[in-house]
Amino acid sequence: MPTMIIKNVNILTMNKNKDIVENGVIVIENNIIKDIGNEELLNKYSCGNIIDGKNGILIPGMINTHTHASMVVFRSLGDDVPNRLKRYLFPLEKMLVNKELVYIGAKYGILEMLLGGVTTFADMYYFEDEVAKAAKVLGIRGILGETIVDFPSPDSEKPYGGLEYSKSFIENYKDDELIIPAVAPHAIYTNDKEHLKRAYDIANRYKVPMMMHVAEMDYEYNNCIKEYNMTPIQYLDSIGILDERFISAHSILVSDKDIEILDKKNVGISHNVGANSKGAKGVAPIIKMHEKGMKIGLGTDGPMSGNTLDIVTQMPLVGKIHKLANNDRSIFPSSEILEMATIGGAKALNLDDEIGSIEIGKKADLVLFETDSVNMQPIYDYYSVLVYSANPSNVDMVIVNGKIIVKNKILVGDNNTQKELINQLQIMKKKILDIANKL
Amino acid sequence: MPTMIIKNVNILTMNKNKDIVENGVIVIENNIIKDIGNEELLNKYSCGNIIDGKNGILIPGMINTHTHASMVVFRSLGDDVPNRLKRYLFPLEKMLVNKELVYIGAKYGILEMLLGGVTTFADMYYFEDEVAKAAKVLGIRGILGETIVDFPSPDSEKPYGGLEYSKSFIENYKDDELIIPAVAPHAIYTNDKEHLKRAYDIANRYKVPMMMHVAEMDYEYNNCIKEYNMTPIQYLDSIGILDERFISAHSILVSDKDIEILDKKNVGISHNVGANSKGAKGVAPIIKMHEKGMKIGLGTDGPMSGNTLDIVTQMPLVGKIHKLANNDRSIFPSSEILEMATIGGAKALNLDDEIGSIEIGKKADLVLFETDSVNMQPIYDYYSVLVYSANPSNVDMVIVNGKIIVKNKILVGDNNTQKELINQLQIMKKKILDIANKL
Repeated sequence: MPTMIIKNVNILTMNKNKDIVENGVIVIENNIIKDIGNEELLNKYSCGNIIDGKNGILIPGMINTHTHASMVVFRSLGDDVPNRLKRYLFPLEKMLVNKELVYIGAKYGILEMLLGGVTTFADMYYFEDEVAKAAKVLGIRGILGETIVDFPSPDSEKPYGGLEYSKSFIENYKDDELIIPAVAPHAIYTNDKEHLKRAYDIANRYKVPMMMHVAEMDYEYNNCIKEYNMTPIQYLDSIGILDERFISAHSILVSDKDIEILDKKNVGISHNVGANSKGAKGVAPIIKMHEKGMKIGLGTDGPMSGNTLDIVTQMPLVGKIHKLANNDRSIFPSSEILEMATIGGAKALNLDDEIGSIEIGKKADLVLFETDSVNMQPIYDYYSVLVYSANPSNVDMVIVNGKIIVKNKILVGDNNTQKELINQLQIMKKKILDIANKL
Repeated sequence: MPTMIIKNVNILTMNKNKDIVENGVIVIENNIIKDIGNEELLNKYSCGNIIDGKNGILIPGMINTHTHASMVVFRSLGDDVPNRLKRYLFPLEKMLVNKELVYIGAKYGILEMLLGGVTTFADMYYFEDEVAKAAKVLGIRGILGETIVDFPSPDSEKPYGGLEYSKSFIENYKDDELIIPAVAPHAIYTNDKEHLKRAYDIANRYKVPMMMHVAEMDYEYNNCIKEYNMTPIQYLDSIGILDERFISAHSILVSDKDIEILDKKNVGISHNVGANSKGAKGVAPIIKMHEKGMKIGLGTDGPMSGNTLDIVTQMPLVGKIHKLANNDRSIFPSSEILEMATIGGAKALNLDDEIGSIEIGKKADLVLFETDSVNMQPIYDYYSVLVYSANPSNVDMVIVNGKIIVKNKILVGDNNTQKELINQLQIMKKKILDIANKL
């Protein structure tokens, strides 16, 4: 028996053929998509819970393949400062990051993601248990990995404490319905060869994802060439840790040869176009990766780098920046950009059997855009409207794992979470400013 | 006697010192800003109309310095198509553009601009009388010019019919409170020397602005070099039509020498970063112009090129694309980007004595952003929040010329305009699709 039917929606399935069902109906049973079709389905199934989609646009839940959600507590601090990382971020993290900050920040960031249509996010930070707790409270899907670094960090007095943390985190969450634990060494410039291999061994033993910042920084690239006479990708390949479970965040400074390696090893790519451009880091050559059919998803990076956590605002940037960088207005048509935001992200995270498209048998992770706002009309091309006109405030309803989390643009059955969180952020802001003003 | 007081707002004045008044109060008398200060002003003035700004962010009305608003009827049609102009746009305009389309399109586009915080727009299209009518009905400020081209156009069976149209349009609107008539030759590749000079003579006689697409297209640039051995800017200068009333839209393909000319002639620049990047046209070197202190505002271009008509979504693109293109994360700090969106645009249009900043004596063109939405918190830096986190749906109240046009995110005292316009667009869409499908 269906638990929910949504009618009067224009469904962008994002299946292999990119089928579109106009004036469509979708039938959900518990957490699974049971049927997709036109109005005739309303005769085929009976259900007490029929939702009118009001001629909106229904897409698969969007996937944020790389972020550090809790950093939202620092958002708008130190933007445009050249040495921001060392001047602000590292000292602030050292002095302030604790379980409470991570929990409140994660909850806030997850709320923003849900309201903006993100149903799955990949996160790496400190105290990921707190992020997992926040994810479960709000009902979002998360791929979560404790950051591993070669220096004392908020979660560990000793270097590489993240390795031990990861093991127990994986044990705790390996059978969770919404959380997929992961291993997350920070980068090659904060992890030596031996510990990268240990991280890989953990990921391999538990068959969990491994996420890492790769080929993002010029000093990362230059030092790698200097020390090993190899690019970061070639170095990672040489130590044997690239495989289909590896998620390579950023991947900006990659050569054609690097792309061949990434393709051969079936590595997932998290493309963070907003953060990469704001940070003046360069344009990842994803057009070449896309032509090879590689697994590419979109990410926001942390909100000190990319500010917003939704994927809607990443989409127009993908089009604009790559068209510009490649001097070709026809590359990355909107449908391919929405593909990266949904099924591409699912592929990058190896979750495309379960999520990323609207297909019978897949998990019901769905996002409904209203089409009543001025910016959402006229509609000659659904993809173009979503990519070039929509903003996260046009997201009307969000379903994760068959459960309605957001309806009429607010969190279902919850009038206080948002206000409470904003208040908590205000209190935290005072503490943060006290310290930041002395830096 | 004040006609309106707004309290409990954080005022980004955008005056010369970029003064910020936190927990501020602004006093308006008719259409003029009478006073700005802190809560003490509430004792100084008495007024029956005190509005609580709910701790929002108050900025000067944003200025869209270049658009073709009526083209919103075609939005999302033919995006990503390489030969879009010739395949879709020109035939559609030839067959479909009439007074009715221009009026409905303008009204729709103006509604979108107002809801997104634009209080002044510069527009060039056909039948600008209709655009002016729509502007006055909705209450936005407009600098409007009839497009002048060397071929028969919807408004004229003969080439250059726009010249005569301009004269009578200027006569009709020269004393209007909200409308500033302008002269708008399309480009150097659609206007010969003689007619460009005639257009300039009209602008000069009436002392009205002259707006034009300049140094936007590669063929425009290449043909100009080939024919005159001059860049487009040098060519325009050589025929004597550049002056402080000239508004140069796009200005992408400009050399250092061109910038010197533009600076010397005190030309206003309309920077259309979103449309220019989506169209893969290049990055206008506005960082160099900005360093010279030139008059630079932001524009959206028409909604077939840039899709949305608000300026909020242009702002992050200015930061991201120029930081990227210049390989420097510190250029164009957010305050300078909001400057271009407000007082910079006013300067480009030579209206900075009247609008563009929140200063005593200036016209009350104001935009209030709410700060209750998740994306608007935390606030360490007001400018950064507006430039990198806000979207047009965060605009809560809009005042033009002392009159509240938008309140609580909707058009004041008007429940039907938006729905009616969407319905009219739907009807028009059918006609447009009938023709577009045969192209």
